[in-house]
Amino acid sequence: MKIVAFSGGVGGAKLADGLAQCLPPSNLTVIVNTGDDFDHLGLRICPDLDTVVYTLAGLANPATGWGRAEETWNALETLQTLGSETWFKLGDRDLGLHLERTRRLAAGETLSQVTQHICRCWGIEHRILPVSDQRIATIVDTVEYGELPFQQYFVKHQCHPAVKGFRFEGIETAQAAPGVLSAIHRADAVVLTPSNPWVSLDPILCVPGIRQALEKKRILAVSPIIAGKTVKGPAAKMFDELGIAPSALAVAQHYHDLIETLVIDRQDESQSQSIAALGITPLVTDTIMKTRADRKRLAQEILNYLQTLTA
Amino acid sequence: MKIVAFSGGVGGAKLADGLAQCLPPSNLTVIVNTGDDFDHLGLRICPDLDTVVYTLAGLANPATGWGRAEETWNALETLQTLGSETWFKLGDRDLGLHLERTRRLAAGETLSQVTQHICRCWGIEHRILPVSDQRIATIVDTVEYGELPFQQYFVKHQCHPAVKGFRFEGIETAQAAPGVLSAIHRADAVVLTPSNPWVSLDPILCVPGIRQALEKKRILAVSPIIAGKTVKGPAAKMFDELGIAPSALAVAQHYHDLIETLVIDRQDESQSQSIAALGITPLVTDTIMKTRADRKRLAQEILNYLQTLTA
Repeated sequence: MKIVAFSGGVGGAKLADGLAQCLPPSNLTVIVNTGDDFDHLGLRICPDLDTVVYTLAGLANPATGWGRAEETWNALETLQTLGSETWFKLGDRDLGLHLERTRRLAAGETLSQVTQHICRCWGIEHRILPVSDQRIATIVDTVEYGELPFQQYFVKHQCHPAVKGFRFEGIETAQAAPGVLSAIHRADAVVLTPSNPWVSLDPILCVPGIRQALEKKRILAVSPIIAGKTVKGPAAKMFDELGIAPSALAVAQHYHDLIETLVIDRQDESQSQSIAALGITPLVTDTIMKTRADRKRLAQEILNYLQTLTA
Repeated sequence: MKIVAFSGGVGGAKLADGLAQCLPPSNLTVIVNTGDDFDHLGLRICPDLDTVVYTLAGLANPATGWGRAEETWNALETLQTLGSETWFKLGDRDLGLHLERTRRLAAGETLSQVTQHICRCWGIEHRILPVSDQRIATIVDTVEYGELPFQQYFVKHQCHPAVKGFRFEGIETAQAAPGVLSAIHRADAVVLTPSNPWVSLDPILCVPGIRQALEKKRILAVSPIIAGKTVKGPAAKMFDELGIAPSALAVAQHYHDLIETLVIDRQDESQSQSIAALGITPLVTDTIMKTRADRKRLAQEILNYLQTLTA
């Protein structure tokens, strides 16, 4: 079965890793949000791409989910002594990646070419694609500060400002990166990983051509909201601030015109009926991925379920 | 006594540190070669400036003389796994400085402004000035490869190619950085530290206006050649390849139209008479600086000597 997974950062990367544990390389393409990408200290930084790449390469920091394992922070320490901007936590190993990506982009390579190179160097056989090679910048509209570039909201302000809405700068003229639309066309199913619907998956879904490619596709989402909360990140807080009680049902409503199945946690089983009433099949299981084995089990369960639909 | 010191990298930085140990901040300006500066992985790297800054800030690696103490190499390790250029050894702490300098230069600051900021942050009170804010690029003409940018010759090829000559790209239009000429004008004496005459001090001396400012100045040089060799770097090898036997006398001849005094090592005492015959006073002492105390002793001896001339 050929699967395309849409992914943001940590939660998405975990399920992508689970799928990669279950599927041969030719059967999985992970399409990653680039709306979080930004330039910092002259470097192009792609937080979601890097989290997916580090996770699939086995290099991710298991404690944080982002950044590298066995990381050191000496460049950042120097920057601090020089009064520079240090709100974005750049590890030394991580810096090497940003330097090489920035160098290659400056030399004329596209982000997908650079990503392919990184994957090849680090032995990642499953395909990881940025959703677009053009710049897309997620802008968060906040009550306190007005519009903030995503990383300012997410890291500098630690998601404290209340959100009013989002826009994705540059998305109207962005094109899906080479391979994205064809991977969707070839896929037996598309999996929306448990990433933030507002700022991780919506930027992917809004790239011109993607929605159209998804028409008549079998689409399954995994709810990032469990018992009204998220494992990580501001998705629940965002639902709240936008006047929507955060729940698996709210996720179903968010994706109601798109998905066929919503995987929800056992803790949210009571919402199954309301979700089903939207015409979406709830698939109830354990969705919290604490270990690498959890990722594989959840992925396998999703694949088994999709297999029964196809059979 | 007000002193201006001209410096390249390690040897020059050691004597600059000695002078800084002896003189109050207002009485010492160190003018540093920028001909070695280059862009690498998108970063502006200024090896001689950094060596002088690290040394005067007490941050230098005592084993190598260049780079930072307690350095780690994790960014470089990542670059290596990505097949990037790793011939130039970028440490993680060192990277922080390059990132901040590159960021400030891109924001429109001059190299002297950036250097001043770094010195202020790291508590360096003596003045360190790049010789120019404009780009000067030392090009080494070699037998094997023709012209090589300095760092390619120095680091990538480890000084192996035989040299035929040197040129300093951009020097005709370069201007002395703010403060350089006035520091020379105010100085009671100028000290040419034991840096490479060909590629560390000549680029300083060739910046328009410097030679003129040095006219009628009391100038003392410290020979970088001791018993026909250098403590570090390719100066002796360069003399040889240019058909000049490397010696303290050869240094005296190199600077004969410029200097009044040449400090030579006791090992070269036998050359005193030939040096004197050029109209240059030889000052014989121990010139090898192994410890911080050695630097101070040599600097103090030079200052005492200059004091006797002024008295």
